[in-house]
Amino acid sequence: MNTYPVITISREYGSGGRLIGKRLAEELGLPFYDKDLITRAAADSGLSPEVLEAAEDQAPSSLLYTLSTGGLTGMVGGVGMPLSDRLFLAQFDAIRKIAAEGPCVIVGRCSNYVLRERPGALHFFIHADLDSRIERIIKEYGVPEKEAEAKIAKTDKRRASYYNHYTSVKWGDARNYHLSINSAALGIEGTVALCRDFVTAYRRQH
Amino acid sequence: MNTYPVITISREYGSGGRLIGKRLAEELGLPFYDKDLITRAAADSGLSPEVLEAAEDQAPSSLLYTLSTGGLTGMVGGVGMPLSDRLFLAQFDAIRKIAAEGPCVIVGRCSNYVLRERPGALHFFIHADLDSRIERIIKEYGVPEKEAEAKIAKTDKRRASYYNHYTSVKWGDARNYHLSINSAALGIEGTVALCRDFVTAYRRQH
Repeated sequence: MNTYPVITISREYGSGGRLIGKRLAEELGLPFYDKDLITRAAADSGLSPEVLEAAEDQAPSSLLYTLSTGGLTGMVGGVGMPLSDRLFLAQFDAIRKIAAEGPCVIVGRCSNYVLRERPGALHFFIHADLDSRIERIIKEYGVPEKEAEAKIAKTDKRRASYYNHYTSVKWGDARNYHLSINSAALGIEGTVALCRDFVTAYRRQH
Repeated sequence: MNTYPVITISREYGSGGRLIGKRLAEELGLPFYDKDLITRAAADSGLSPEVLEAAEDQAPSSLLYTLSTGGLTGMVGGVGMPLSDRLFLAQFDAIRKIAAEGPCVIVGRCSNYVLRERPGALHFFIHADLDSRIERIIKEYGVPEKEAEAKIAKTDKRRASYYNHYTSVKWGDARNYHLSINSAALGIEGTVALCRDFVTAYRRQH
């Protein structure tokens, strides 16, 4: 493989997965996408960034139901479609466009599922022990100590629910990823290094 | 960490996980256990190796039911307990004894679950794309081509059923392992090398 692959990173809240993706992108010299995705999706679908951000916290409604009743006419942002589904489709579209532009690192938003059929894309999952995640969100995000565990449970539940709603596979199942790592075992830099080793070995093989 | 850790390897059928564990043990100079476990469990529990091997293919009956109705008196190999549960308990016991002896590589038999509370133990999961697993079992195990896919489905189902029956967690969930790898991405030797890199980085951190 002459060029770097497209790399997606899924992660548990507090595992450092976003930072690991950012550091990996820096080390490989690749563009990095996370919230940028939303801005881009918004720009391409005509939804304002504020509306898209607000939709982030909505519980997903039934996209399949919407589709089966003809509520979707193939147009992203179709009238009558729940905001969360319009957002999902806009992001889906943006992720595919970004990946089509070339090698990059994309964090979250079901990107591994969206790009599951893309030849040569690599999918990573970052998780960590609960204790280390609690420590991390207190230290890095300033979450109050007594709220930390509940916030982790709530955020993971939302991510899993979002993922399981929009995809046909289970969030966190190792078989959906080429590489899954407990970041507490190696630390942030150690995990970045292992991801880089994986990418290097992969390029040598393909 | 001055010594090597105890390493467990769980794997999908046809992923090369057993061979990867064997090669990793060779490279690190550690003892390797898989079927040996059964022999050892048999020796320690008084069950004959033939009986234990026969029990391997039994569907697990309800150990929890056995326990809740007082069918188990704390004695491995207790009379009245289904053979599959006696086997499980004998193996459980053997895995803990082997791990207590020192650093080693253990493949399968819910060993990651049995040793989940052991400080410093590392748990790996090896999986692979279906196509590469089919190719592997035809080539390495001589499974006829037309039977390969069905054999994989059946063996994985049995392993998942065994695991999910005897443990409180899901087989294949990335969060039960420190490292999960799709062995088709890097090949057997590439996967062994990545596992070794992980162990080296882990020892440096701890």
